[in-house]
Amino acid sequence: MDKSQLLSQYNQIKAEGLKLDMSRGKPPAEVLAYSNRLLEISLFDDYHSVNRIDCRNYGVLDGIPEAKALFAPILGVSTDEIIIGGNSSLQMMYDAVTRAMLSGVSEKAEPWSKDKSGRVKFICPVPGYDRHFSICEGLGIEMLNLPLNQGQPDIDMVEDMVARDGSIKGMWCVTVYSNPTGITYSDQTVRRLAGMKTKADDFRLFWDCAYIVHHLTDTHCNILNILDECKQAGNPDRVYMFGSTSKITFPGAGVAIMAASEGNTAYIKKHMGFQTIGSDKLNQLRHVRFFKDFNGIVAHMKLLKDILKPKFDAVIEMLEKQLKPHNLGEWHSPDGGYFISFDGNKGTAEKTVRLCKEAGVVLTNAGATFPYGKDPEDRNIRIAPTYPSVEELKAAMTVFCVSVKLASAELG
Amino acid sequence: MDKSQLLSQYNQIKAEGLKLDMSRGKPPAEVLAYSNRLLEISLFDDYHSVNRIDCRNYGVLDGIPEAKALFAPILGVSTDEIIIGGNSSLQMMYDAVTRAMLSGVSEKAEPWSKDKSGRVKFICPVPGYDRHFSICEGLGIEMLNLPLNQGQPDIDMVEDMVARDGSIKGMWCVTVYSNPTGITYSDQTVRRLAGMKTKADDFRLFWDCAYIVHHLTDTHCNILNILDECKQAGNPDRVYMFGSTSKITFPGAGVAIMAASEGNTAYIKKHMGFQTIGSDKLNQLRHVRFFKDFNGIVAHMKLLKDILKPKFDAVIEMLEKQLKPHNLGEWHSPDGGYFISFDGNKGTAEKTVRLCKEAGVVLTNAGATFPYGKDPEDRNIRIAPTYPSVEELKAAMTVFCVSVKLASAELG
Repeated sequence: MDKSQLLSQYNQIKAEGLKLDMSRGKPPAEVLAYSNRLLEISLFDDYHSVNRIDCRNYGVLDGIPEAKALFAPILGVSTDEIIIGGNSSLQMMYDAVTRAMLSGVSEKAEPWSKDKSGRVKFICPVPGYDRHFSICEGLGIEMLNLPLNQGQPDIDMVEDMVARDGSIKGMWCVTVYSNPTGITYSDQTVRRLAGMKTKADDFRLFWDCAYIVHHLTDTHCNILNILDECKQAGNPDRVYMFGSTSKITFPGAGVAIMAASEGNTAYIKKHMGFQTIGSDKLNQLRHVRFFKDFNGIVAHMKLLKDILKPKFDAVIEMLEKQLKPHNLGEWHSPDGGYFISFDGNKGTAEKTVRLCKEAGVVLTNAGATFPYGKDPEDRNIRIAPTYPSVEELKAAMTVFCVSVKLASAELG
Repeated sequence: MDKSQLLSQYNQIKAEGLKLDMSRGKPPAEVLAYSNRLLEISLFDDYHSVNRIDCRNYGVLDGIPEAKALFAPILGVSTDEIIIGGNSSLQMMYDAVTRAMLSGVSEKAEPWSKDKSGRVKFICPVPGYDRHFSICEGLGIEMLNLPLNQGQPDIDMVEDMVARDGSIKGMWCVTVYSNPTGITYSDQTVRRLAGMKTKADDFRLFWDCAYIVHHLTDTHCNILNILDECKQAGNPDRVYMFGSTSKITFPGAGVAIMAASEGNTAYIKKHMGFQTIGSDKLNQLRHVRFFKDFNGIVAHMKLLKDILKPKFDAVIEMLEKQLKPHNLGEWHSPDGGYFISFDGNKGTAEKTVRLCKEAGVVLTNAGATFPYGKDPEDRNIRIAPTYPSVEELKAAMTVFCVSVKLASAELG
């Protein structure tokens, strides 16, 4: 098909006046509906936790015991290693970074913001999660791109970077069904991250388990437990793990969690005590009554999978049909998570996103999956298939594929 | 009564094996019960905000419109000037301080942590709220005690301090029925705080309105609106206001709010955007459905007053009866709030608190109402009468009064 034919096809679609949003990883209404019982669970007759705390009142900084017991298996940690937060794991990550900036990561450590080098740097596997990068950008933390190597974060490069540069204080890791690539860290990647030598004593892995139970197939990925690996490697304090029910129950009113060594959690809780008296225990109680135990979460996720899988299939099918024959772009069919990562020809991503937008399909901004919003090759586009219906996705992907072709043709 | 008689009286009481806690400003179960409908409000049939946002899902950084409309009158601000937070106003204050430390208070301002002087200082009216002081202590902010003068924060001294010292970046103010003194800032105090010249361009008043609708009488105190006064004085960005429903509905699961000029809120929201996608909108919705409008809050607070007033009366009555005749200490019967501030003879507070504890009555630690936990005169004790029953309070105050007498006698 030549460029004029593509253009006329594009203009025809544009004239249809679509209005579709594939920009964010939002659960659709059908997914949320499976948690609607949370909206009507009455706590009127019993608002006490198992240890007889009145959950309406003050107290309990780090979460009620039954919430810890419910959520600890998500991260594979003990109830002594978990802290229950508010409704946002992003907030817990942000707090972990600001705490380290202002007070350091332990009683002995200096605040990152007072590092002798005058700089604080984070390693950012790319493409990655834009909100991780925003935390760094907002706080003036320098970000270093880390490419993938054979589908895994380039661990040789990581080892080299952290061994040489003491101002590298952290690394963002979305380790299971990563945002946006869908990859899961291999045993080797996990072990080497746990064991590597870091010049900075106060280096931390920010281990975001946002999609750890969010499978799209029945063969679930296995990932080594990073906290166990860090302990075995003699670096028990190296990692902060994060998770939430944002994409299990309600994104706006779920429960966030973090986990770390007992040394880390003791220090974190001391500082959390300056900042709050405790998170919403009634919402913790609602979640416990809703799920009962970890098996309840696993069963719930199977229901969600049945809704989400066909959406991913629809996107992949369109890509296979429309773009593969023309060798336009690369993608990976993920086994879980919330995204499909699309790599077009160099220099086409921004144009593709703009063409889509002008035809009524909003995608995540090109570049958003890179620090500072800058994709050096202008290739990567994050596709978020969860929110629209399958019908809408087909329409949106028609626009997308034509836009990719057009953007590629104009380069040629 | 001589010392041996006092001692025998004390030992007699001690033998009763009381176990009472007057250490924190916790609402009692009878108060919480008035909000129990919040525990059973079902959102099943309508979980949308007035602007058709699905409150289960992501979005809305600063609160749903009807929550803004409900809570803005508490602080006397417009809905453009309010930000709805999570369940903790302490968290909003902490965030405001850390944000200023790491990023400054505006686009133009330097981070406080990079102040040329190498120091950041806050003015702390004393006695004051221990958790305010903990925020500063946790972040290494130097605290400067500010005494009262004729029942008001010594405003001459404040003006002098902020005019001379550019490293003074903030001042904690509990402005209505203050914790623990029960005082309300006078028109003159408010106006001079709004209008005073500060050496630091980036100075902020942290205006905690924790008890602004928490009256104990029918003649409500009036306080000038600090935001209006700041605007009139040409310092619209000087103040951050804070409040919450922690002592209106549920301490553990209420809604926190803050307010400031539109310039400030725009800047704050930009940085909040790095830290969270938004607070729990379902809990905002529950509160809106529960109260309907500000009149609902006012009516609710009258119910709470009827429970709390007799508790304050019981404490004051015991003090008047047991200690006034002996001229032992000073106190003030507050018209609202959560505390009674007791000033004993110099050097007696720590001893009194210890004697009470040994007899089974837990008070807030002596010194807690001062920065660094150090009451220079060892006089002040914060009495928190809200949680125990009237009967328990009478028993506790018997212990307290004997302990005060004993502590005073031992000095003599």
